[in-house]
Amino acid sequence: MEEETTTSSIPENVVLIGKKPAMNYVLAVVTQFNNGAKSVKVRARGNAISRAVDVAEIARNRFVTDVKVNQIDISSEEIANEDGTKSKVSAIEIILAK
Amino acid sequence: MEEETTTSSIPENVVLIGKKPAMNYVLAVVTQFNNGAKSVKVRARGNAISRAVDVAEIARNRFVTDVKVNQIDISSEEIANEDGTKSKVSAIEIILAK
Repeated sequence: MEEETTTSSIPENVVLIGKKPAMNYVLAVVTQFNNGAKSVKVRARGNAISRAVDVAEIARNRFVTDVKVNQIDISSEEIANEDGTKSKVSAIEIILAK
Repeated sequence: MEEETTTSSIPENVVLIGKKPAMNYVLAVVTQFNNGAKSVKVRARGNAISRAVDVAEIARNRFVTDVKVNQIDISSEEIANEDGTKSKVSAIEIILAK
């Protein structure tokens, strides 16, 4: 509890990948590191997984070259469809760290 | 050099993910394990990366439940376009192992 309470509102340096162009998320990752983050989690589900890998690769190869891929986890998540049924969708979490 | 030379013709248990439905590749992975493979590499580039994660998740959760994700690597590869220019594309390698 030594830090400012404002830090608790930051979702632990997570960048959630959606349908926007990859560079939008690359900018988010780079900004987190420039703001002092020691690690950033890049998360995605379904078709966005490919974009998450692009984001991690572009960020570390072009912008924050002192950052390495620390860990990659894949998992399955259950999501509720609009008609009440459930589907399984794959997910990825790529942890970039200095 | 103790093994039969025929093993050298097997491309070290690699399943390359393309544009077919995920279950086609799941079958390939499961077949490799059933043929005695101790590990199988699932590789993909670009948009197929999402499918590679699906394949790994479906295979280990539904078909070969004694298999674990041993290692995941992401990288960037340069590919030549038809007009002679070059593009960078992300790639993934997921190693499943007993």
